Amino acid sequence: MKKIQSDSLFASLMASLIMAVAPSCFAQMPTLEISTLVNEYRIEHEQEILVDFVNLLSMPNDSANSEDIDANAELISQMLQSRGFATRTLRAGRAPYVFAELTTPGATKTLILYAHFDGQPVQEENWTYPPFTPTLMDAPLPGGEPIDLETVSGSFDPEWRLYARSAGDDKMPIVAIIHTLDAMRAKGIPLSVNLKLLLDGEEERGSPTVGQIIDENPSLFDADLFLFCDGPMHQSRRAQLVFGVRGSGTVDITTYGATRPLHSGHYGNWAPNPIMQLSYLLTSMRSENGRILVDGYYDNVATLSEAERAAINTMPDTAADLQNELSIHTPEGEGVRLEELVTLPAINARGIAAGGVGTRGRNIILPSATVSLNLRMVPNQQPLRLRELIENHLQKEGFFVVHEDPSAAVLRNNSNVVKLNWRGVGNAGLRTPMSDEVAQHLIGIMKELAPDLILTPSMGGTLPLNAFDDRLDTPIIILPLANHDNNQHGRDENIRLQNIWDAMAVYGVLFAKFGGS
Amino acid sequence: MKKIQSDSLFASLMASLIMAVAPSCFAQMPTLEISTLVNEYRIEHEQEILVDFVNLLSMPNDSANSEDIDANAELISQMLQSRGFATRTLRAGRAPYVFAELTTPGATKTLILYAHFDGQPVQEENWTYPPFTPTLMDAPLPGGEPIDLETVSGSFDPEWRLYARSAGDDKMPIVAIIHTLDAMRAKGIPLSVNLKLLLDGEEERGSPTVGQIIDENPSLFDADLFLFCDGPMHQSRRAQLVFGVRGSGTVDITTYGATRPLHSGHYGNWAPNPIMQLSYLLTSMRSENGRILVDGYYDNVATLSEAERAAINTMPDTAADLQNELSIHTPEGEGVRLEELVTLPAINARGIAAGGVGTRGRNIILPSATVSLNLRMVPNQQPLRLRELIENHLQKEGFFVVHEDPSAAVLRNNSNVVKLNWRGVGNAGLRTPMSDEVAQHLIGIMKELAPDLILTPSMGGTLPLNAFDDRLDTPIIILPLANHDNNQHGRDENIRLQNIWDAMAVYGVLFAKFGGS
Repeated sequence: MKKIQSDSLFASLMASLIMAVAPSCFAQMPTLEISTLVNEYRIEHEQEILVDFVNLLSMPNDSANSEDIDANAELISQMLQSRGFATRTLRAGRAPYVFAELTTPGATKTLILYAHFDGQPVQEENWTYPPFTPTLMDAPLPGGEPIDLETVSGSFDPEWRLYARSAGDDKMPIVAIIHTLDAMRAKGIPLSVNLKLLLDGEEERGSPTVGQIIDENPSLFDADLFLFCDGPMHQSRRAQLVFGVRGSGTVDITTYGATRPLHSGHYGNWAPNPIMQLSYLLTSMRSENGRILVDGYYDNVATLSEAERAAINTMPDTAADLQNELSIHTPEGEGVRLEELVTLPAINARGIAAGGVGTRGRNIILPSATVSLNLRMVPNQQPLRLRELIENHLQKEGFFVVHEDPSAAVLRNNSNVVKLNWRGVGNAGLRTPMSDEVAQHLIGIMKELAPDLILTPSMGGTLPLNAFDDRLDTPIIILPLANHDNNQHGRDENIRLQNIWDAMAVYGVLFAKFGGS
Repeated sequence: MKKIQSDSLFASLMASLIMAVAPSCFAQMPTLEISTLVNEYRIEHEQEILVDFVNLLSMPNDSANSEDIDANAELISQMLQSRGFATRTLRAGRAPYVFAELTTPGATKTLILYAHFDGQPVQEENWTYPPFTPTLMDAPLPGGEPIDLETVSGSFDPEWRLYARSAGDDKMPIVAIIHTLDAMRAKGIPLSVNLKLLLDGEEERGSPTVGQIIDENPSLFDADLFLFCDGPMHQSRRAQLVFGVRGSGTVDITTYGATRPLHSGHYGNWAPNPIMQLSYLLTSMRSENGRILVDGYYDNVATLSEAERAAINTMPDTAADLQNELSIHTPEGEGVRLEELVTLPAINARGIAAGGVGTRGRNIILPSATVSLNLRMVPNQQPLRLRELIENHLQKEGFFVVHEDPSAAVLRNNSNVVKLNWRGVGNAGLRTPMSDEVAQHLIGIMKELAPDLILTPSMGGTLPLNAFDDRLDTPIIILPLANHDNNQHGRDENIRLQNIWDAMAVYGVLFAKFGGS
């Protein structure tokens, strides 16, 4: 469909009129006009939008507290119902998923948007302001001063930030979507697509039941595109689409010395030292550059397409800034760009524990030492195959692999006993080709709004996408909307107001144009 | 001097008489007779001896609590004064040392005995019975049942055990010495030597002021032999003399990643991982067999003499039993005997800390990781030289060594920053040659009492001997008296009654015969 130029109000009004009566001609309104209208509405309603957001953020939402999660689901359902959504609560375990549907007469395309309303646990004493007393600040912390939201008259500085648990991860899309729909109605911007929302109440616990939810309700998830609205945007603050994620798995590895702590003087040089054994094990698995030394580990790793590599090469290179900010002299990866490195599998030692250091150190040789490894996996890798490769590697390195606490007899009869505690199967990640038709369609729409759109083949992190990817044919693309410095999972989580406003403009354009050709 | 045979009571009485009037003829009484008389006395007074010991063990003696330590010193001084010792409290810092002296008219030799009366901190909730409510048990815990000491009539089973903090480490020698002297007086066994006691009130804190104590009171420490009565006996329960100790030093080593925790997905493969860096560092320092890979580390290590090697080869080989008890399949050291391995330096990773494992694991790359190393050093090594060698090694391995928390600028401008926190200088250990005249004299006396005496060139552990070794010419020999399974430093510390009785016999023979030729 040819685009109508936005050079006259008449044309614009005509377009609205046509669309209202002729759904087959969706998405006639020019992108700039849509975003302008959404912004106009938003400027008139900033306080109202933020009050709504504050109400939602005021509800404690620790993922582990199911009563709180249920209460959040209840409020969100009400907010959606009042905008015409049909809602239902899906539940395959303890946690609720809010599923909402808004049908657009005549629309032939369907968009599913994903967000989550549960949050990471908070250590309240570490927060500058209480995590469930959302606080508007005139600048980022430290340094910012609180502002009474109710007393602001006139416009809100878009650099102000709202501090609360889940402000950035991940309640914002919910509030942005409903107020975008309010704006579209108020400004006469027609919807072009059927909308489905899947709002997750257990994402921070790894969405353990989402697979069952899909299996039990397969038709609910029919759509042309799954749009995952989670995660931080690029540090450059430019609009971004992300086409893949790494998967994640965890294994705790324990090595053993004697069955009781031994005096390091009396037995040092003789008793096996489990900390040292862990060190030999870790260095056998991973080079100093992060390269995994396990035979076969890279066998199925999906290589980057020309388009993906080109996209990476045109992304802003933030490495120098990042290194400076994080005081990193030499990153791992031998100079390969971060954006490319995260398309490769990684093994990260995330924690290690044995005895004490500093004043808690004691002169003993410990009975055991444990390291926890996080495996980031990429498309085409098979988690269970990687498990096999790692265990083969350890056996080749002379370790005797067990999966339960070894008995004294097992320790006595085998050298270098190592326990592998695989904490779930994990998943391998996914990547939607940028060349897919729907991907190209989405990129086209987004580029009209944001010509400097960043296209990221894969983010390094993990989202609960595999359950969808494994079960549905729908392409999955990630639309990150939160500021990169939102402190997700940590203390003083926040959202920058401009990111809420930008999210509304993006949703407005998508909802108005995705149904077009 | 020729030994008088103990085949007649007359000869024995004559000997006593001669010794009482003729100090130059000390040590005429046969060893067997001395030990028999001491045992006779002990059997008649077991309850009284144990009540005395219980009184002393009832006094809390956490090394960190100076009021408690002072109270212990006070009671011990009174106990010694009532046996004719002149006592004084030496103090160069917070902790008291009880110095006691008992002069024997005519004696030309002086023996200093060392023990300590402070104890390791207790975690009372872990003890089966309260650590300062000494409890007599009819068998080792677990399994043993308590016995009311006051109601025992008749003899005490020598396999019974007394449970209390410091029962094994190291109040027993104090009680054994005073009751041996009571026995000698009661049974007419003459003393052959001047006795000096140095009873340490801060051993468990590393005796930080003992050097100053010696420096301020040099003449007090004139003696022919320093006999250190501390540490567990050989597992075979055979009498033992130990001629050396390893020294000990500690360094905490910290590696650095980014200055804040990073998401292991978003940054994994790019952000330096401090746990991995510690692993590379540790494996660069130490082979899987415990061999230290730092250039020059073995340069000054004292080799074993023929006599020392022979002594080791005739020691009971307990390795198989130990391996079985401790469920160790393959010890470090490539088959070299434990007794020889402890004459070599060792580097022991005693604790490591970074992030969490198990349910405390989080998917982050940590800002830092710390390992605590205990260095066991041997005679002729120089602690400050070893420090230099280790730092040279790390620099050669590409680490940038600092000694304070690195600033962001230091981290930004240098790769592989590593902080070394040397916790004190440490000491190198010592070894008295078995061929020394006084060593040969002591061995001769001991062998009369215990023909299967074990001669150990060096124990693996450390005692606060270096302060003496550095300052005095007096040979130092260790006389361990506690059962090897006394649980020193841990919960349910205990002494086996037979070990108290054996200690008294040893002291009786030594006090009666050391002054002889």
